[in-house]
Amino acid sequence: MSKLTLSMAQTMVSAALAKAADLGLKPLTVAVMDAGGHLVALARQDGSSIMRPQIASGKAFGALAMGTGTRWLNANAETRPHFVQALNGVAGGAIVPVAGGVLVKSAGGEVLGAIGVTGDSSDNDEICALAGIAAVGLVGDCG
Amino acid sequence: MSKLTLSMAQTMVSAALAKAADLGLKPLTVAVMDAGGHLVALARQDGSSIMRPQIASGKAFGALAMGTGTRWLNANAETRPHFVQALNGVAGGAIVPVAGGVLVKSAGGEVLGAIGVTGDSSDNDEICALAGIAAVGLVGDCG
Amino acid sequence: MSKLTLSMAQTMVSAALAKAADLGLKPLTVAVMDAGGHLVALARQDGSSIMRPQIASGKAFGALAMGTGTRWLNANAETRPHFVQALNGVAGGAIVPVAGGVLVKSAGGEVLGAIGVTGDSSDNDEICALAGIAAVGLVGDCG
Amino acid sequence: MSKLTLSMAQTMVSAALAKAADLGLKPLTVAVMDAGGHLVALARQDGSSIMRPQIASGKAFGALAMGTGTRWLNANAETRPHFVQALNGVAGGAIVPVAGGVLVKSAGGEVLGAIGVTGDSSDNDEICALAGIAAVGLVGDCG
Repeated sequence: MSKLTLSMAQTMVSAALAKAADLGLKPLTVAVMDAGGHLVALARQDGSSIMRPQIASGKAFGALAMGTGTRWLNANAETRPHFVQALNGVAGGAIVPVAGGVLVKSAGGEVLGAIGVTGDSSDNDEICALAGIAAVGLVGDCG
Repeated sequence: MSKLTLSMAQTMVSAALAKAADLGLKPLTVAVMDAGGHLVALARQDGSSIMRPQIASGKAFGALAMGTGTRWLNANAETRPHFVQALNGVAGGAIVPVAGGVLVKSAGGEVLGAIGVTGDSSDNDEICALAGIAAVGLVGDCG
Repeated sequence: MSKLTLSMAQTMVSAALAKAADLGLKPLTVAVMDAGGHLVALARQDGSSIMRPQIASGKAFGALAMGTGTRWLNANAETRPHFVQALNGVAGGAIVPVAGGVLVKSAGGEVLGAIGVTGDSSDNDEICALAGIAAVGLVGDCG
Repeated sequence: MSKLTLSMAQTMVSAALAKAADLGLKPLTVAVMDAGGHLVALARQDGSSIMRPQIASGKAFGALAMGTGTRWLNANAETRPHFVQALNGVAGGAIVPVAGGVLVKSAGGEVLGAIGVTGDSSDNDEICALAGIAAVGLVGDCG
């Protein structure tokens, strides 16, 4: 199980959105990337604003960029803003350093990809990201 | 009334500029975008400086990007500067996160577009944006 | 039916991929955008190469940019290459001007969005795009 | 009369669109820039596709960039494509080198601005641009 397949990614998206429905969250956008930082599946709910695909992708990419969830990047943005800014410089501005980007790992610790969620509070976004990961029996790293 | 037409956008521009005349404001630029963040109408008054079209557009786009008026972005720029900087990264620098970008909604809450105003203080810019929205019987969301 | 919803977009993706399976095509990536050129749903099949999300999106965006399917852009790239190059200049390089980007319209001719497909020949990509549109009872404009 | 005012620009936009209505053209977008290449007024008709503001602006800017209408650029794109490509390089991709961008001059030959029109054939776009210029008693240079 060394690859994150489209089937797995679609299950993750559905589970993340189901969690959001359970919690009564605002409209979300969910992006799932493979280990190379390339989109596998994306869904934007009705009413989720127009830059949400880029934000969800930016969270997933940020997690992969540093090898840990974007909660770590959010903390660093407060303590070492110059580092996070410079990281986004070398990344071409592709990273959104707030919670809600979660690294997806196998039980053995192999990085298989990442999921990024946006639309509600960053904490709630992250809860949905973890629900997506749990639905395929993998392990989330929030940072 | 599910679309923001050119006729509506031109009425919004005229009403915003009429409000500015009433208040004796500095020369303004007004941009009206549809729900997808694409210009429908723009007017730059004589004496309004050369980057004002981009600033007015950047306010309107910022409102649409996050699904709320740019007053919200201005507040976030103070509390979470790394988020607003990163948002502009994924948006290609197209967002101006200060008040004066107001989301345009139907009475039922559907996002129809946004209006961005620049040239005077952000508060006064926003007053003119709201006057534009009122002139077409729609609802403004300042953030 | 004035909006392209997530539910409709997911149906379009599934139908396009089902058509590809029927025809025995190579692994595809499918992107569905709303009328404003913003992603609603995207799926990349296992084995579809890493830039396919950008290519599928670039086809969908190209159709929306000009208001007709990308077959029109492909023809213009041959007869007026300077126009297509310049169009991509003002579009920030976001357009892929080959067949496989199909505009999605209502029966009444309103533009609701676009679907872009990539992975097999452009002609086969377009066949799958049309299958996606047919599955939601809308009308495709190939250009 | 050394400046192109907002009032003049709005008259030019209205006259260009009135000409299009007379001729039964497709939905247009019209952009009017001052002598510095900065937008003064823009209008996108209902049904004019989403990149049209950039295309109309790119025609107006192209006319100002070279000091003559974009018909000249279109001809050069065929005979000296490397020049037009390099021009767009130094212009940051802001130029659309096809007919429909017309320089606006005073009777004495002073450049006051430019008007760009897009949406129908380039020849028809140019006819509407010239109608806009005629409406304010100025002189058009098509290139």
